Amino acid sequence: MTSQYTLHGFFRSGASYRVRIALNLKGVSYEQFGYKLRKNEQNSEAFLKLNPQGFVPALESNDTVLTQSLAICEYLDEIIPTPKLLPDNAIERARVRAFSQVIACDIHPIQNLKILQRLSALGLDEDQVNAWAATTINEGLDACEALIKRQSGPFCFGEDVTLADVCLIPQLVNARRFGASMKWERLMEIEAKCLTLDAFKRAMPENQPDAV
Amino acid sequence: MTSQYTLHGFFRSGASYRVRIALNLKGVSYEQFGYKLRKNEQNSEAFLKLNPQGFVPALESNDTVLTQSLAICEYLDEIIPTPKLLPDNAIERARVRAFSQVIACDIHPIQNLKILQRLSALGLDEDQVNAWAATTINEGLDACEALIKRQSGPFCFGEDVTLADVCLIPQLVNARRFGASMKWERLMEIEAKCLTLDAFKRAMPENQPDAV
Repeated sequence: MTSQYTLHGFFRSGASYRVRIALNLKGVSYEQFGYKLRKNEQNSEAFLKLNPQGFVPALESNDTVLTQSLAICEYLDEIIPTPKLLPDNAIERARVRAFSQVIACDIHPIQNLKILQRLSALGLDEDQVNAWAATTINEGLDACEALIKRQSGPFCFGEDVTLADVCLIPQLVNARRFGASMKWERLMEIEAKCLTLDAFKRAMPENQPDAV
Repeated sequence: MTSQYTLHGFFRSGASYRVRIALNLKGVSYEQFGYKLRKNEQNSEAFLKLNPQGFVPALESNDTVLTQSLAICEYLDEIIPTPKLLPDNAIERARVRAFSQVIACDIHPIQNLKILQRLSALGLDEDQVNAWAATTINEGLDACEALIKRQSGPFCFGEDVTLADVCLIPQLVNARRFGASMKWERLMEIEAKCLTLDAFKRAMPENQPDAV
């Protein structure tokens, strides 16, 4: 049987990883199509027809293509309400979204491949480029750790996985890759817990069909 | 009478401008507290108690502080449903959110003051820093124009203002400041329409109490 959903992404893309976790949590089966970002395949004519921004991920279903990982995750949460990725209370929802946006707005886009390539093209050497990424991640994850310091439970916001965990786990992969401090006690505990869950394990970069 | 809400922001901050528009659209009165970003006031001890990330805006109400402009806008949309900032249909909601996230994730954070200061500190000259910002904005707004090319109506997504317009208008201020191309026909029409509305006009940077 052909799956209803096709995820256009890349095994190492943190934003694609978020969507894979969300799809797995929701119990949705999907096919994957991988784009090698270093070969600029996301700017191929075929992909630009799906997403004129030329960014992965894009989630295709029937004749609909959705883009931007957080928008896709919220869409999945709306059409498949269980298990829910956002709390019921409006203030708590806002806190989960804010934590997610620290990662999706203020960390990840500043340290993604596209930006690091732009920095290299401006003459920065490899050490400077890696330091740029590590500084961005350290400052951002310091904020994340502080934002949940009054929360308890195994996940970012209590007893249940939320969008915050969906964003956190992929960011920690990049944190390690760029030599970030990894000194965040709560974030490390949450990561260990998440990675016991099948939905997170199956979404890991190394478990994707396009992994090299 | 004291207002229930205090917006901690900065007149020139695009993310604060988004929240001002949303508050105005929802008919909420609010006080403002301005932080001079060039003087690093957002990293003062007092503000870090409100938002450990040290980023504006933050919306304070009673003893609650909410952060991240999109999370704040969605919160306001949930507790004050009229006029709504997101369509009822899940796919349309996802499209409005995706457009908003192109701006809030992929344009604005790459060209904000903090990043431009980091580029200067790495030795880039003023022309290089301004070109960095202009390139980021041009590529991002090209994507925005493409994402709504099949939409009609005076606003980004039809006959009603949505979160997409709330994000677009502040970004266009930065686009002009950095000498972006401003060649986007639909975006320019939408801007002209939005700026006829009182909620947008009152939110403009030059109309804020901390404007200089």
